[in-house]
Amino acid sequence: MPTLSISKTRPNVEAVIWAADMAGTFVFAVEGAVSAMRGGLDLLGVMVVSFVAALGGGVIRDLLLGATPPSAIRDWRYPALTFAAGLLTFLFHSLAQPVPDLLVTVVDAAGLALFAVAGVEKALLFEIRPFVAMLMGTVTGVGGGVIRDILLARVPLVLRADIYATAAFFGALVVIVARRAGVPPGWAAVVGGVACFALRMMAVVFGWHLPKAAGW
Amino acid sequence: MPTLSISKTRPNVEAVIWAADMAGTFVFAVEGAVSAMRGGLDLLGVMVVSFVAALGGGVIRDLLLGATPPSAIRDWRYPALTFAAGLLTFLFHSLAQPVPDLLVTVVDAAGLALFAVAGVEKALLFEIRPFVAMLMGTVTGVGGGVIRDILLARVPLVLRADIYATAAFFGALVVIVARRAGVPPGWAAVVGGVACFALRMMAVVFGWHLPKAAGW
Amino acid sequence: MPTLSISKTRPNVEAVIWAADMAGTFVFAVEGAVSAMRGGLDLLGVMVVSFVAALGGGVIRDLLLGATPPSAIRDWRYPALTFAAGLLTFLFHSLAQPVPDLLVTVVDAAGLALFAVAGVEKALLFEIRPFVAMLMGTVTGVGGGVIRDILLARVPLVLRADIYATAAFFGALVVIVARRAGVPPGWAAVVGGVACFALRMMAVVFGWHLPKAAGW
Repeated sequence: MPTLSISKTRPNVEAVIWAADMAGTFVFAVEGAVSAMRGGLDLLGVMVVSFVAALGGGVIRDLLLGATPPSAIRDWRYPALTFAAGLLTFLFHSLAQPVPDLLVTVVDAAGLALFAVAGVEKALLFEIRPFVAMLMGTVTGVGGGVIRDILLARVPLVLRADIYATAAFFGALVVIVARRAGVPPGWAAVVGGVACFALRMMAVVFGWHLPKAAGW
Repeated sequence: MPTLSISKTRPNVEAVIWAADMAGTFVFAVEGAVSAMRGGLDLLGVMVVSFVAALGGGVIRDLLLGATPPSAIRDWRYPALTFAAGLLTFLFHSLAQPVPDLLVTVVDAAGLALFAVAGVEKALLFEIRPFVAMLMGTVTGVGGGVIRDILLARVPLVLRADIYATAAFFGALVVIVARRAGVPPGWAAVVGGVACFALRMMAVVFGWHLPKAAGW
Repeated sequence: MPTLSISKTRPNVEAVIWAADMAGTFVFAVEGAVSAMRGGLDLLGVMVVSFVAALGGGVIRDLLLGATPPSAIRDWRYPALTFAAGLLTFLFHSLAQPVPDLLVTVVDAAGLALFAVAGVEKALLFEIRPFVAMLMGTVTGVGGGVIRDILLARVPLVLRADIYATAAFFGALVVIVARRAGVPPGWAAVVGGVACFALRMMAVVFGWHLPKAAGW
């Protein structure tokens, strides 16, 4: 990271990125573990899919930014957290089955918002142009789920259905627009995250979908 | 890029790379969009597949060369062009259906030739050895299609059928051989592109295929 | 690579990495070629799958370490070896069919051990923390097989069955523990490789598997 130009607001931004990353990581790792168990994988497969589902988006972002080794690799707490989440899910999934779908959806939408905002913030730290920073935020939010589905040999869910990547992109867009409008970075991040979360939840509640091509 | 050693021929080479990249990008983005619509993806999925089909090969090339952020990310015109191509294809595909297959094949072969030549040129700019530069040209030409097919959960077409990657490799080989023989770089690029295009078209017209293993 | 801090033991370590890489590369390339022929790919597809099956793990490792261009690309002998292995397998596979399964298993376990140790050694050269270096060793060992299976549009074998990635991780763990215990690096590598090989072979012979989630 560019350490020379740290202003007094930077430490806060980095702390926010870190906290958001850890919280989103745990949620996505548990979801990845559940997908992997449904796909009939063994314990190792479950832990691997937990890892890639949670950290794959950030790894792709960091590879594209040239920020190697990616923070998911450089900081041992990330892989340790995902493996722990995978193992715990594997051991205690029978307790989790009565969890209501709505709770899963809410927590997942929160994870998506956290990741999208963390991704756009990191891209901006690397002085990436705003339009591309929005794409980086989106990739951070949905990249892990895409790799998870590729490993499970199915068309990534995010490409087929729902307002999901769209919500991540919208949240990243709000971060950029709010910063342009003079909102302090910390508040811009909060507003962007809320925007992503709200759009995702409304899409689920009201059954919003993007159009498909007719007649194919 | 190694900016210290720019000779007076470099600007031309870079302009050729850029123009070839933009033209090939548009063609491959439209093809990716059509594949995605046939696969039942929604509007966002169509735009994402347009992006990866057109830019995936160059992104892999740039990641392997260590040229991060990849030009597909650093230069906002690339993603903007692919998203526009995806959106236009999605909106107006009904007009495109009567397009004759031969035209699609010709334009695709031209895109392949442009990408393969652009890829080998960029690898040479990074002082990569000739044999590996040929592989980089091939990856640039076919990598996007491979990622597109992975996202659509099918065995990449390029591995199963036809003289396609072979044509990209042949074009890259011709670029290298022509440069070795003293042909100026600009002309070597033209000759290599024509060689790739010609081999691809002949393979389609005459139904040439690579052999498969018998008895499996 | 960090060339400033080369001690007098470094050349040996690098020579061991190189020799292990070449031997493992050949074995994995032949296996990749056989998988690709079974999947009905043509000659080019067979050669591409040979390449990625043998070198994909190392390429992912090097991309994550930021060691670009990856050694599989920088050193032309690696791709040349895998293409030769793919071509030879394609031409002479009928001779290979009576090869007993046990021999294939033994040679594959040796390749896995060589790759896992080479991966952890390279990560340590880059001053990666031990826990993450173990993951890098595992990725080096199994990454190629994962990409191979993704290209063949199936769930990676390593995630579904057997003690395979687990053996790679165990070997990498033994390397780290042995070094911590004061064993010289060369011997730590040997002990780790033997540990990986032994666990993999015992898992095959005794039919050991990791548990799967019950009731899904």
